[in-house]
Order: sequence, then C-alpha cells, then structure tokens
Amino acid sequence: MKQHFFHAYPAIDRALNEVNQIINSRITINNSSLNNALQQMASNGGKYLRPAFFLLFADINNKQSEERNQLIKIAASLEILHMATLIHDDIIDDSPKRRGAVSIQSAFGKDTAVYSGDFLFTIFFSLLVETMRTTPYLARNAQTMRKILTGELGQMANRFDLNQSLLDYYRNVNGKTAALFSLAAEEGAYFGQTSRRTTALAKRIGQNIGISFQILDDILDYSGDKHLNKPVLEDLATGVYSLPLLLTLQNHRDELQPLLDKRRQMTIADMEKVQRLVIQYGGVQEAQQIAEKFTKKAHEEIQALPNSKSKRLLAKLAQKLLTRVN
Amino acid sequence: MKQHFFHAYPAIDRALNEVNQIINSRITINNSSLNNALQQMASNGGKYLRPAFFLLFADINNKQSEERNQLIKIAASLEILHMATLIHDDIIDDSPKRRGAVSIQSAFGKDTAVYSGDFLFTIFFSLLVETMRTTPYLARNAQTMRKILTGELGQMANRFDLNQSLLDYYRNVNGKTAALFSLAAEEGAYFGQTSRRTTALAKRIGQNIGISFQILDDILDYSGDKHLNKPVLEDLATGVYSLPLLLTLQNHRDELQPLLDKRRQMTIADMEKVQRLVIQYGGVQEAQQIAEKFTKKAHEEIQALPNSKSKRLLAKLAQKLLTRVN
Repeated sequence: MKQHFFHAYPAIDRALNEVNQIINSRITINNSSLNNALQQMASNGGKYLRPAFFLLFADINNKQSEERNQLIKIAASLEILHMATLIHDDIIDDSPKRRGAVSIQSAFGKDTAVYSGDFLFTIFFSLLVETMRTTPYLARNAQTMRKILTGELGQMANRFDLNQSLLDYYRNVNGKTAALFSLAAEEGAYFGQTSRRTTALAKRIGQNIGISFQILDDILDYSGDKHLNKPVLEDLATGVYSLPLLLTLQNHRDELQPLLDKRRQMTIADMEKVQRLVIQYGGVQEAQQIAEKFTKKAHEEIQALPNSKSKRLLAKLAQKLLTRVN
Repeated sequence: MKQHFFHAYPAIDRALNEVNQIINSRITINNSSLNNALQQMASNGGKYLRPAFFLLFADINNKQSEERNQLIKIAASLEILHMATLIHDDIIDDSPKRRGAVSIQSAFGKDTAVYSGDFLFTIFFSLLVETMRTTPYLARNAQTMRKILTGELGQMANRFDLNQSLLDYYRNVNGKTAALFSLAAEEGAYFGQTSRRTTALAKRIGQNIGISFQILDDILDYSGDKHLNKPVLEDLATGVYSLPLLLTLQNHRDELQPLLDKRRQMTIADMEKVQRLVIQYGGVQEAQQIAEKFTKKAHEEIQALPNSKSKRLLAKLAQKLLTRVN
C-alpha cells in the first residue's frame, strides 16, 4: 500500500495494514487472475483515506476499544465499497489505469468489471451484516450507497450539458464523493462511542472534507499534475463538466461553446484549448478558492472536537489532503 | 405485468400487484426517463416468479399473517435483486431486448446500465434492512448475492472453454439461478413461520426448481421458440456453452470444435450448424431428461409439504414452469 499519507503515523499505518489484510482475505473468487487483480488493486496505491478517517474518528475518545476487530472490519467495508464504485466508474470512463496499475476493465474487459464491482458490493454487505446489524448504521450505509449511486447517475445525466447549474454539480459531488467521507467520519465517531454531538460534528467534517477533496480532484483534471495515476482532462473527454469549467462558462460561454459542442468529436487540441481558457479566465483559481472555503470550514469543525491525538492527526491529514498536487 | 402464470390465481395475482407497486414506489431517481424505463421493466413482462415462490411458501401454513406488508416488501426485494442482475447481464450479453422491451443498456447505454443495476442493489439492501434486520436472513441474502455473482463470474471465466466440465456448468447454474429461487422459497417458509423442517425442504425445492428452470432456459436457446423475448443462440454467440452443447461435446467434439474455435468470428450459419448438430446428436433431448429429473425431485419434495392451498398451487406452478416453451 502506498502510504505516503500515513508513513509518519505508525499507529494508523499498522491499522491500515490490518484493514488491507481483511480485504485480501475477503476477496476470494474461484478465478485466480481476477483474484490477484482485485488484491493488487486493494493493496496498490490506494490511500485508504476512508478507512483512515473512520479509524481516526473512532479513536477520538482515546479509548482503547475492546472491539478492535469490529472497527477494522468496518474500516474495510468503507474501502470495499469505494473500490466497487471505482471499478464501475472505470467502465464508464473507459479508464485504462487505476491506482497506477491497469484497471480491472482494461485487464479483464467490461463484463468482468461489472461483476467484479457487484461482487465487492456483496463483500461490503456481508461485512456490515457482521459488524453493525443491531445499529442504525446498517440503514445509514444503505442510504449512503444510494446517495453515491444517485450522484453518479446525476453526473451522467448532466454529461455534455452546458446548462447545468452549480447546484447540480454540488449535489452530484455531495453524492458521489462526500457521502462516503461523511459516513466514514460519522460511523467512526459512533463506533468509537463518542457523544451524539461529536458524531454529528464528525458527519459534517467528513462532508466538508469530501466536497473539498472532490473539487480539488476536479481542479487537478485541469491544472495538470495528475498524469501519474490518471490522464489529464479525462472528465472533459467524457462530457463531465466540473467546477472549474462551470465557473468559466458563466462569463465566457461564447468562447467555450463552439469547442464543447463538438462533444465526443473534440480533438486533443480542442481539449487543450478549453483547458487553457479555463485556466486563463480564472476558473481553476476560483474553484481553488471555493475548495479552500470547505477546507477552512472542516478545520474549524475539527477544532471543536474533543482534544486527542486523533484530533491533531485529523487536522494534519485534512491539510495534507487538501493541498495535494496529484 | 404479464401474469400468464398467475391470472388463474387471483390471490397471488393481487399480491404480485402489490409487490409491483412497492417496487415502483422505490424506484425514484432524479432522472425521469431512466425512472420510467426501470418502472416499465418492473411492470412489463416480468413473471415475478421469485416473489410468487416466496409468497406461496409464506402461505404454506394457511396462516393469515399480520405482517403482510413485511412479506410484500421481502417479495419485492427478491425481484429487485433479480432485476439488478438482469440489467448487468444485459451489459455483458449486449442484449438489445429484455422482457420484450428495449433493455436499459440498449436505451441508455452501458454506463447508465451499470449504475442502474447498482442503484437497484441499494434498494434491495434497504428493503432487507427494513424487514429482516433481526433475523438470520440478512446474512443469507448477502450470501445469496455472493453466490449469484460467483456463478456469473464462473460462467464468464468459462466462456469459450471447450474443456469445462458438467460440474462447472452445474456449479455456475446453481449460483446464477438456483441460489435466488432457493432463497425465495426458504425465506418464504421462514417468514411464513413454518417449521424448521419445512423451511429446509423449501430451500431444496427452490434449488431443484431453479436448476431445472435454468436448464430449460438453456435448452430453449437451442430448440428455438425463444425469439419472443430473446434472440435464439445468444449463449452460443457470447461463448457460454450450456448443457445441451456440453453434452454433445462429450461424444462429438471433432465435429463441433472447428466451428467453436472460431469464437467471436462464428457466422450465423456456423451457429445454426452447431445448433443442428446439438439437436441431431441428442444434446437437447438429454438435457431435457436431466431437467426432468430435477423437476421430478422438486415435485416429490413439494408432496412432502404440509397440505395447503399453496402446496397445490406450487405443484401446478412447478409443472407449468418446467414445461414452458418460451
């Protein structure tokens, strides 16, 4: 696991290794090459951000939990759900790469990718049944999965739509990305037996970090240092108009529309021209400022958490995450 | 809903209409055309066999349940899970048609089909959480979903494989089809508060009916009256070698192999030649005999159920289902 976020924090690092082991032990399909590919995906390049947030919030009370095994399993469930949606996203995007390696759909075809994602949903489902059957979080997980899918479907419905509003964008981002960060934080606080107030705070922190995280991801699609793991301008090529472009469209539609109207016929030169215009007219910069507002809000909320080592790590992690360049 | 199986049984017919209503009320996506397509799929042409089996087994005690609403929801969960897998299957098969109408993937593209299936998984999941959180059936459902996916992945891994065994075939059929029939019957008996013995019996009945049902489906791919809803020889075209072909391969491999080795380059004439050979050498007939064994077993087991109206309907339904011609 690439743990460039966590190598300085041995306790988290150790816990995430356990999460990784649980995931690998659950991915057992009677097809060894697919098995290996899924295990590689689970082990390779994933930052395990959602499990990390969960575990940090679970530790906010500084309590040594007797139910450590349960916590590790729940952390694993979050990453498994995330992986399932990544595999299905790669089908939609035709992505050749994922986490620096060949994507499941690229290695095994779309067909296997469809069922592999579904298979991971079943593992997710089983982990929840084992760990939280008697809590309200089974329903919250179902709800979150629904929000993610609603966000993905919403984003898809808006593809190539020049008239979508910023509200549409925020709603889709809230679903496809922030919902899972929010759940990770909230259920971390819940299973870490914090107060109701802290649990509600955790939920909001996760949401704000999630939105900021996604906006930053969308900015990186234009600002360009993303080539290590994913091709630049991938969103644009698939008709997903994200915040930097939507902001630029507000005042410079006339210049952009002739390019965007080409849709799937846009050339690389066309896309690079869109990229230049978005940067030149300040779309990237403005999106950056919006992301910073969400980050700032998250930081203020983190400050309101009970004092603990986890709180300090969360603040650092949020800062590191939201100023990343790839 | 095409209820050619149930129009003679008003009580089932009525209950299935309620199931249909629950499904439609749950399919609410902020995308009206997709919404309509899913509702149409739920309402149009589906035989609702799994909900029907569930409800018949739930009624085997002749008890009037106080929890009728719960039973209708569980029945709906079975059809929703089935629909999700159908939508994903159609991506794999590139099926233009489903239930006599245009398939989701054909109307909206593969991308939407991927997320629509996922979206239905979340509805499935929510229905379970609402109805059976305190029972062992939440875990059984997770397990069943896993079996279905393992069967689908197994079938896919065996595509174009001339050396797969009959055991591979049965294992995949048991997963992709029989597991859900078996669950429908078993959880019907459980939530209908029958004895442990009856619940165990129901599980076996569902499994035997499911296997027989799938073999018959595979036979219809060769014997040809299937064109109303699905193209004939679709399995063959996608490299899925089902029982009639596998049986024929055992003694006539030399004649079949040159045709099958063409894989995706097989012409329609090639496929029709394979079809003729499979029929001529008795593969269809032998598969028919095997299906009849499973049907016979199911009938014997149905006879061992407590006497009730449902028992008599189940016997009729099994007979009707397993002698269908499309």
